[in-house]
Amino acid sequence: MHKRIKYGMVGGGQGAFIGAVHRMAARIDDQFELVAGALSSNAERAAASAAEVGIDPSRSYASFEDMAKAEAARQDGIKAVSVVTPNYMHFPVAKAFLQAGISVICDKPLTATLNDALALGEIAKLSKAEFILTHNYSGYPMVRQAREIVQSGQIGKVRRVQVEYVQDWLSAAVDAAENKQADWRADPKRSGLGGAIADIGTHAFQLTNFISGVAVREIAADLTRFVDGRLVDDDAHMLLRFENGAKGYLWASQVAPGNENNLRIRIYGEKGGIDWSQENPNQLWVSMLGEPKHLLTRGGHGTSEVAANVTRVPAGHPEGYLEGFATIYNEAADIIRNGRNPDCLSPTIDEGILGMRFIDAAIRSSNADAKWTPIDA
Amino acid sequence: MHKRIKYGMVGGGQGAFIGAVHRMAARIDDQFELVAGALSSNAERAAASAAEVGIDPSRSYASFEDMAKAEAARQDGIKAVSVVTPNYMHFPVAKAFLQAGISVICDKPLTATLNDALALGEIAKLSKAEFILTHNYSGYPMVRQAREIVQSGQIGKVRRVQVEYVQDWLSAAVDAAENKQADWRADPKRSGLGGAIADIGTHAFQLTNFISGVAVREIAADLTRFVDGRLVDDDAHMLLRFENGAKGYLWASQVAPGNENNLRIRIYGEKGGIDWSQENPNQLWVSMLGEPKHLLTRGGHGTSEVAANVTRVPAGHPEGYLEGFATIYNEAADIIRNGRNPDCLSPTIDEGILGMRFIDAAIRSSNADAKWTPIDA
Amino acid sequence: MHKRIKYGMVGGGQGAFIGAVHRMAARIDDQFELVAGALSSNAERAAASAAEVGIDPSRSYASFEDMAKAEAARQDGIKAVSVVTPNYMHFPVAKAFLQAGISVICDKPLTATLNDALALGEIAKLSKAEFILTHNYSGYPMVRQAREIVQSGQIGKVRRVQVEYVQDWLSAAVDAAENKQADWRADPKRSGLGGAIADIGTHAFQLTNFISGVAVREIAADLTRFVDGRLVDDDAHMLLRFENGAKGYLWASQVAPGNENNLRIRIYGEKGGIDWSQENPNQLWVSMLGEPKHLLTRGGHGTSEVAANVTRVPAGHPEGYLEGFATIYNEAADIIRNGRNPDCLSPTIDEGILGMRFIDAAIRSSNADAKWTPIDA
Amino acid sequence: MHKRIKYGMVGGGQGAFIGAVHRMAARIDDQFELVAGALSSNAERAAASAAEVGIDPSRSYASFEDMAKAEAARQDGIKAVSVVTPNYMHFPVAKAFLQAGISVICDKPLTATLNDALALGEIAKLSKAEFILTHNYSGYPMVRQAREIVQSGQIGKVRRVQVEYVQDWLSAAVDAAENKQADWRADPKRSGLGGAIADIGTHAFQLTNFISGVAVREIAADLTRFVDGRLVDDDAHMLLRFENGAKGYLWASQVAPGNENNLRIRIYGEKGGIDWSQENPNQLWVSMLGEPKHLLTRGGHGTSEVAANVTRVPAGHPEGYLEGFATIYNEAADIIRNGRNPDCLSPTIDEGILGMRFIDAAIRSSNADAKWTPIDA
Repeated sequence: MHKRIKYGMVGGGQGAFIGAVHRMAARIDDQFELVAGALSSNAERAAASAAEVGIDPSRSYASFEDMAKAEAARQDGIKAVSVVTPNYMHFPVAKAFLQAGISVICDKPLTATLNDALALGEIAKLSKAEFILTHNYSGYPMVRQAREIVQSGQIGKVRRVQVEYVQDWLSAAVDAAENKQADWRADPKRSGLGGAIADIGTHAFQLTNFISGVAVREIAADLTRFVDGRLVDDDAHMLLRFENGAKGYLWASQVAPGNENNLRIRIYGEKGGIDWSQENPNQLWVSMLGEPKHLLTRGGHGTSEVAANVTRVPAGHPEGYLEGFATIYNEAADIIRNGRNPDCLSPTIDEGILGMRFIDAAIRSSNADAKWTPIDA
Repeated sequence: MHKRIKYGMVGGGQGAFIGAVHRMAARIDDQFELVAGALSSNAERAAASAAEVGIDPSRSYASFEDMAKAEAARQDGIKAVSVVTPNYMHFPVAKAFLQAGISVICDKPLTATLNDALALGEIAKLSKAEFILTHNYSGYPMVRQAREIVQSGQIGKVRRVQVEYVQDWLSAAVDAAENKQADWRADPKRSGLGGAIADIGTHAFQLTNFISGVAVREIAADLTRFVDGRLVDDDAHMLLRFENGAKGYLWASQVAPGNENNLRIRIYGEKGGIDWSQENPNQLWVSMLGEPKHLLTRGGHGTSEVAANVTRVPAGHPEGYLEGFATIYNEAADIIRNGRNPDCLSPTIDEGILGMRFIDAAIRSSNADAKWTPIDA
Repeated sequence: MHKRIKYGMVGGGQGAFIGAVHRMAARIDDQFELVAGALSSNAERAAASAAEVGIDPSRSYASFEDMAKAEAARQDGIKAVSVVTPNYMHFPVAKAFLQAGISVICDKPLTATLNDALALGEIAKLSKAEFILTHNYSGYPMVRQAREIVQSGQIGKVRRVQVEYVQDWLSAAVDAAENKQADWRADPKRSGLGGAIADIGTHAFQLTNFISGVAVREIAADLTRFVDGRLVDDDAHMLLRFENGAKGYLWASQVAPGNENNLRIRIYGEKGGIDWSQENPNQLWVSMLGEPKHLLTRGGHGTSEVAANVTRVPAGHPEGYLEGFATIYNEAADIIRNGRNPDCLSPTIDEGILGMRFIDAAIRSSNADAKWTPIDA
Repeated sequence: MHKRIKYGMVGGGQGAFIGAVHRMAARIDDQFELVAGALSSNAERAAASAAEVGIDPSRSYASFEDMAKAEAARQDGIKAVSVVTPNYMHFPVAKAFLQAGISVICDKPLTATLNDALALGEIAKLSKAEFILTHNYSGYPMVRQAREIVQSGQIGKVRRVQVEYVQDWLSAAVDAAENKQADWRADPKRSGLGGAIADIGTHAFQLTNFISGVAVREIAADLTRFVDGRLVDDDAHMLLRFENGAKGYLWASQVAPGNENNLRIRIYGEKGGIDWSQENPNQLWVSMLGEPKHLLTRGGHGTSEVAANVTRVPAGHPEGYLEGFATIYNEAADIIRNGRNPDCLSPTIDEGILGMRFIDAAIRSSNADAKWTPIDA
């Protein structure tokens, strides 16, 4: 008999974008049931938000500390919590639940500072509970397919990785009162030192590692604040050097008009190349040297189990952002129930820590005039 | 406080594609809770399927008649049922539930025969329960946007409608044992007289009406069975003439290699044109005479409330097939709770009947060597 | 030593579009040298036009009859003439030069009426001179590649051909004074009875034959004049039935906003399909059943000699409309020098006659309410 | 009366690619007539090549020095010479003709070394003859359109320039015997110190300047030789900093499988952005902040005179690489006849010198571990 995992949520109250995304993602594959929440640090909004999403008032908490404590004490308490707060709260919230033995599904970047990340890593090691980081783009079937193509050696030794994650929604100064997302992201106290580099650059970096399987050794980064008055970078780019001698480029920008959520990665090896774009995620271009390029499609011919396993509907029936996100939740359910299988592809806390090292290295490199700076892993 | 509508399902057991789609669609916006089912006509499979999807064994029924009767009698009985059986069962199942006062969310085409459809229309009129037909493609935000653009007169009087729905999965003879979908669709006893014309042609026809707002007056159709031994058409095309003098073309084929689920509609008026493709559903091309063409995107600049209302995630975060489907479920929830609002865009039983008239006219036209044949509405 | 063929031109004076195209096409591969002309029926404009294009005044003629006579009498007279007049003049001009023993390179459609076409066919048979019809789209390398793929049997027996040639420049009434092209094309006395069907429909029809290699047996056509006051069709579409049982659709329209010169052909067989679009002519999609689709590019991997032979620059360096046109001129040069090689792919007068039969059948079918009408070849 | 400019060619004999391109480009607009040549340094091949292209044997020269001398002495001598030799010969050949008073149309990069370039600049200043550098990509109509959009301020102050020029033909070691192009390009003695950076990087750099109108101040470059045994870089990328505070990225690679001749430039300003790709050169994406993006097409609505002036055929009839190249020749003809108009957009020798400074700076930066290195203009 099918049993859903009872879970709670911290953050994600009214007006928040990413909380609703997590809840939809959790529902799609029907592995989770939302039963508790501390949806806002504002008690009134927390209660109203809880009612809206069907959480019983008795399990709507005014603080995450209360929630962790109370839920850990209940026999029918939640087994997992989704952390969808601004970045600076990831650390205390995740810590509280991990220490209460409740598994954590946490949005990225892992924390606001590298120190927090390292500390959280230690806490996670000591906890019996699990930790899953929602680098959701790694849940797309064609990203998984790309990973298999590259890591199986089909395109040969990797020579180049070109990754970009480009948006335009911060091209002009945004009125914080009008845009909750823009508000906290632009405030280093709540988001951490990085702006675009943290918000979207970490996704690009994670995808680079996830697909290429080759570690970035050092970076030469140049970060910019194009919009007057902004306190964090709104544009970041860098040259990459990989352990195996490959070269690469990573660009994260939120000031490029005409780009909505343009995350694209191209990897070129000695024998072939791949090209994937998030805005049309059901396609993957594969080019083998000396052959015409071909187009793999989710669910289509020439794709393999690694993609089929995370595919819900047939080829030509597009899956999107929520389905990719749902795959992370689906795998989180398996991790929570059975422990993490070594083959599981969902992002770990170690990838979260590496992401924080990446932000840290990028800021240091940029402050040193794009000096080559190692990413210590 | 958020309350989900308790619903049941008939059909959609193990191995069925469309049942799982309905369940995911029903979950995404969290308006429904699946509590009962007659998931298979095979009792054992029905029970196993029910367990898999979390239906309590006490509400897993061996027959839809039992289910309608029992659920109507329960105080906490289902308020709605999803009908996802092969076509020929739509009529008796929908009839049973409508007559039991339980609202019906039914897959397309409405029935296997026009007579069944007309009878069901009468039954629906007499029932206090509601009827929603899942022509899911009308749930896509950019389809709604296209509808508004056309029906607001922005592109002027409609002159041409080009619609095609093209697949390739039936290009060769399919081993029925291997493919449950192909099996019943190719059997006139279970699917009705139409093949491609019924299975996908009705979607194309519905979309034509939905977006253009102009009625098709008559058609000249040529249906073909390209694969030896097939009992129904696997390819259908026709010239269209509209009430307002517009001309059009509709092509539905399941034997066109390289097409996965290629539903595309273009509408041209005196002053402009639109172009939408299901495989990249977040985009809508708009061309105004004398101007460069522009690209509207779901959630993007230049779109209006009619699309925003059925959009879940920001521009650049693609929504897909399931989200479009979920919109129909979301609207079904509102219809079931509050009665059908005249502005509601979700498909009605009348559109289902019109679809059956379309199939009937197409077959008659084709049998008469593509003679112009009116679609009596 | 390289020797250019001396040629002349009838029509193509100042303000004419297609004359300049023919001259550029003739120059690209350097097989022709323009030395004579009757560029306009207006003597003054003829002289001025001749001066502009570098024709010696002594060989600028006020009438094509004079030109044919005088050039045939010169020892260094032209060996070929390009006929780029309005359609109704193709017949008398081509006749005069063929009878003078001068080869004719004639724009399409062949003539203004089927009778003229048949008469010209007889004249051409009796002449020692050659006749080449500039259905230029058959000169594109990827069209040739598509032809080879289809006719070699790679995609199996042809089942469907979908061809469309769609423009928007006649969507509104055009002021004849302002647009010389629109002027004569809209006048049945100068263009013939067909409008869009003749001007662009014949290209679509020729391409259908050229690539598929299967003859169209009968058509059911519906022609429309959407713009008030227009004397010929501005939109034409039809169902096709082929000799081998294949079905097809042809649509030619000049009133579809957002379409500049959108000629596209898709052919589906039992084992695969191809898809080519004129506006991006360097690409050809090939889909083999059960495989991911692949993209052939002009000059790229997987293309064959038939395309390489008519390719000038490497892959990725786009060729365009003029280069495709130049291929027809290049082959015309070979035909004029050496007689027509049976393997030569450049269009013949027979294809021109077939095109006129097509126009004739389409008009008759449309006048008979889209009655199935054979194309007698 | 139309008079062609008599010109000659140095280099471009049998088997050479770029010579044939120059000749076709020179013919398209009919402003030039090829009458002399030193097509190969091999006398026999020079003669055979000359015969093939219709040069009179009396004007086929065994050496460029003889040619410059003899042609300068003839009353009907050439007015211009096209220099299409390997890079290291550009300097002596251009020098000889400039000093003989014959205008030079020279392929890029300007020379093999910066010193040669500077010397040639001095020589050109002293000569009454003209110098035109064939950075042909600046001849594309939509590149000109992009330039106007950016430099008119339509997209606001430029913030970012992303340019890439990516190919795959050198992904593996190439047998020099088989590929004449690969042969000399891989030999620093004949091509200069740069590989990809010189061969294609200079095009990307020129396009950056040409469209953006903002000077690059300094670069941090990383050049790589991916293929064993290669003597020059086959991949080069760099961060850019512009005078106005803008940032940018330039990537030139010849080892990226699946890329034929993928030159793409994107420029983002405070108010909008543009995106152009050479492989589909008839299109230009324009995105204005807060509006849906629109697609400009060559010859289409919303384009201006600057593009129309260099357009030959109507919208939807694609122009390609040769037509863009022909525009440079067409403007060269005007320069040679009338002197260089200050509004003329064809590349100057100063742009050639700047390109050599760019190569020089890139190599120095890369040798200093991607140190920021100014481009002294």
